[in-house]
Amino acid sequence: MAIIVKKFGGTSVGSVELIRHIAARIAAGKKPGDAVVLVVSAMAKTTDDLVALAYGISPHPSRRELDMLLTAGERISMALLSLALQEEGLDSISFTGSQSGIITDDRHGNARILNVNAFRIREELARGKIVIVAGFQGVSQSKEITTLGRGGSDTSAVALACYLQAERCEIHTDVDGVFTADPRLVRSARLLPELGYAQMLALAYNGSKVLHPRAVEFAWKYQIPVEVKSSFTFEPGTLLTPAPTTQQGTNMEERKITAIAHKQNLIRYSVAADQRLIGALKDWHNEIFRWWVEGARAELVCEAKYDAEIAHWLDTRQIAILGREAGLGGVTLVGLGINLDPGWLARTLELCAPYAIRRVQHSDMTIELLLPSEQVPACVQALHQAFLGDTP
Amino acid sequence: MAIIVKKFGGTSVGSVELIRHIAARIAAGKKPGDAVVLVVSAMAKTTDDLVALAYGISPHPSRRELDMLLTAGERISMALLSLALQEEGLDSISFTGSQSGIITDDRHGNARILNVNAFRIREELARGKIVIVAGFQGVSQSKEITTLGRGGSDTSAVALACYLQAERCEIHTDVDGVFTADPRLVRSARLLPELGYAQMLALAYNGSKVLHPRAVEFAWKYQIPVEVKSSFTFEPGTLLTPAPTTQQGTNMEERKITAIAHKQNLIRYSVAADQRLIGALKDWHNEIFRWWVEGARAELVCEAKYDAEIAHWLDTRQIAILGREAGLGGVTLVGLGINLDPGWLARTLELCAPYAIRRVQHSDMTIELLLPSEQVPACVQALHQAFLGDTP
Repeated sequence: MAIIVKKFGGTSVGSVELIRHIAARIAAGKKPGDAVVLVVSAMAKTTDDLVALAYGISPHPSRRELDMLLTAGERISMALLSLALQEEGLDSISFTGSQSGIITDDRHGNARILNVNAFRIREELARGKIVIVAGFQGVSQSKEITTLGRGGSDTSAVALACYLQAERCEIHTDVDGVFTADPRLVRSARLLPELGYAQMLALAYNGSKVLHPRAVEFAWKYQIPVEVKSSFTFEPGTLLTPAPTTQQGTNMEERKITAIAHKQNLIRYSVAADQRLIGALKDWHNEIFRWWVEGARAELVCEAKYDAEIAHWLDTRQIAILGREAGLGGVTLVGLGINLDPGWLARTLELCAPYAIRRVQHSDMTIELLLPSEQVPACVQALHQAFLGDTP
Repeated sequence: MAIIVKKFGGTSVGSVELIRHIAARIAAGKKPGDAVVLVVSAMAKTTDDLVALAYGISPHPSRRELDMLLTAGERISMALLSLALQEEGLDSISFTGSQSGIITDDRHGNARILNVNAFRIREELARGKIVIVAGFQGVSQSKEITTLGRGGSDTSAVALACYLQAERCEIHTDVDGVFTADPRLVRSARLLPELGYAQMLALAYNGSKVLHPRAVEFAWKYQIPVEVKSSFTFEPGTLLTPAPTTQQGTNMEERKITAIAHKQNLIRYSVAADQRLIGALKDWHNEIFRWWVEGARAELVCEAKYDAEIAHWLDTRQIAILGREAGLGGVTLVGLGINLDPGWLARTLELCAPYAIRRVQHSDMTIELLLPSEQVPACVQALHQAFLGDTP
C-alpha cells in the first residue's frame, strides 16, 4: 500500500469554498489503491481569533489551557474537510493529534515530537478510508494536549510521512513552490522544480516562508521525499532532493547561486556578553535570526515582533544594552561553495554599493547581508538580476 | 560491471614497501568480476621536492612548466604501483590524467574539471585490467597538462567515480576515517561510521583534513557513495550519506553536535572595505577561511602560510590595513539546527569561559569560534567532553 501524505495550510482551507475545492480535487485525483492521509491546519485566522479570545479573558493565559483552546482550530477544519469528502462520495475519518498517535514532550505551545504511534491511521487506511489528521497538535506522555509551535503542521505532515513510510509528502500551500526569489518581490523569479534539502533549509532559515525550517530538518534527517505545491492548481511544484542542486553549470565544478531569501522587520540588540547573558540565553526559547559575539559584546538580531519580549527579558536579567537598531532586514544568497571563492564576495559588495549594507558574512552555503529593511526589495531585485537573471 | 574507484594518497604510497602492501591487499581482496580503478597521488614529499627543484632554478617558475614538472610525481607512483600489481600476478595499466580523459580549464596550478572522457579506462576495465590513474592532473582543451590544485587527487577520484557510475569511491588515507574530533587532540574521539555529505563538508571547510571540501562538494552534488578508510588496515571507515546524520537521539526532533573541527595558525587582517578591496578580491585565488564586513571594515581570516602573499597583495593594491592579528585558531561545532536554539550558544560560551575567545558566530549547521591558536587543543577537548564525551 503506497501511502501519500498531503498537507493543507491555513489559507488553503480558509473557507468552505476552498475546503470543497480541495475535496473535489482529491476525489478527482484519487486512484484505486491510493492510501491518502490529509494533514490540515486550522482555517486561516482561526488561531489568531482564538488567541485574541483567550487574551480577552486573561493577560497571561496558561499555556495548557491555550493549547486546549487552539487545538479546536484544526478540529473544525478537519471535520469540515471530512464532511466535504463524504459529500464527494469518499469514505473518510478525522483524527486529532492525540488520536493519530503524535507523541510529544510536555512543552505546551512549543512541543517537540518524540514519537509517532500511527496504528489507528494504518487501520483506517487499510479499510480504504481517507484519513484526515489535525496538524500542529500532539499529546504528551501524560496525556496532555500539546501544540507544536511555529511550523507545526508542516512538521506533523513530515513526521507522519516518516512513520508511515509514505511514498511522498506533499505540502499544499498558497504558492506554486519554491522560487529563485520571492515572486512578490522579483517578477522574473523562477520556480525551482527540484531543490536540495540543504538549500531549502538555508532558504527557510533565512526568510523563505514556504516551508518551516523545522519541517525541512526533519525531512532531510529522515530523507522524506517532500513536494511543495499549490493547493489551488495542484500543478507540480518543487521536489526536495538529497543532491544539493540539480542546476548543472557548463562545467562539473562550477559553483552557482541557487536562490535568494530575504527577511524584513528585524531588530538588532548589542548587549554585554557576560555570565548574565549566558544564563539568560538558556531560557530564551524564541529563535534568534542571527547572533555573533565579538569580544565582550554580543549581537542579537531577531524579528521585530519579539521586540517588547526581548526588551523585557534583557531588563529583568539586568543585561546591559549597548545598542539597539530597528528597521533592519536580511538578504541571503544561497549557493554551495560560494564561501570558498572570494570572487562572490567581491561581486556581492559591488552590486550592493547602492545600499546601506550594515554587515556581510558568509557560511558554507550562504552570503548573508544585513541592511535597512526598506532597501531589501531593491537589493533582492538587483542580486537576482545579476546572479539568476539570465539563466533559463 | 560494478566499478570501484579507490584513491591512495601520498602517505599511503610513500615508500616501495607501502606500495607493495597496497598491491598485496588489492590482490587478496579482488573478486572475479570486480572492475577496479586506482587513483594515486605522488609519493609523499615528491611534490615538495619537485617544487624545491623548480624554485632552485627560477624564483618565479612558469605555472605551465611547473605543472609539467609536478605531474611527473604521479607518473612515478602509478608506474610503481602498476609494477607491484603485476608482481602480484594481476594485469594492470597506468594512465596519466590526460590519458584517462580528465578535461580541465586552463588555469595552471589550480584547474577545475570540466568533463571526463573515460573511454580508455572503460576499454581496459572491459579487458579485465586494473586501471591506475594519476590523481591531481588533467589536460586542458588545448592539450596542455594541468594540475588541479589543493585536494586534487580526491577530486580526481570522485570525478572518475561519477563519470564511470562507480558503485562506490573509496578514499584510502593515513587515518581510519572521520572522527568526532581530531584523535590526535582528543583521545576519546570516536570514528563516525556514517556521516552526511553536508556535515562532512562543514568539517572539511573548518579544518578536517581527511577530505578536501572540493571533493566533498563534488560527491554531494553528484551523490557519489564515498567511503573514507585506512590504507593500512583496509578496515571499514566512514561512509558519506545523503541524510545529514545517522545519530538518532532519544526523540525524533532532537538536535545534536555531530563533530568538532579545528584549524590552527590563522592570521586576521582588518582592511578598508572600499572599491579597491572589491577589485582586489576578484583576483585573490586562495581560500579565505572566514571573512565578514561590518560597515567600512572588512575582516579576512586566512591560513598563516598565505601571510606574505596577503601582505604583498594588500600593499600592491594600496588597501589600507586597519589591523592584523597572527596566532589565531578556529574551533567549529557541527550539528544540524544548532543555530535555532540559543541554548547551544549559551552552553558554548559557558564552556569557553577559560579561553580568550575573540569571536563566536553561527551558520545553519555550525557554531564557529575564533581564539588564540595555542588554546585550540584545550578548547576542542573541553567541547568534545561536554558535547560528545558521554554518548556511546
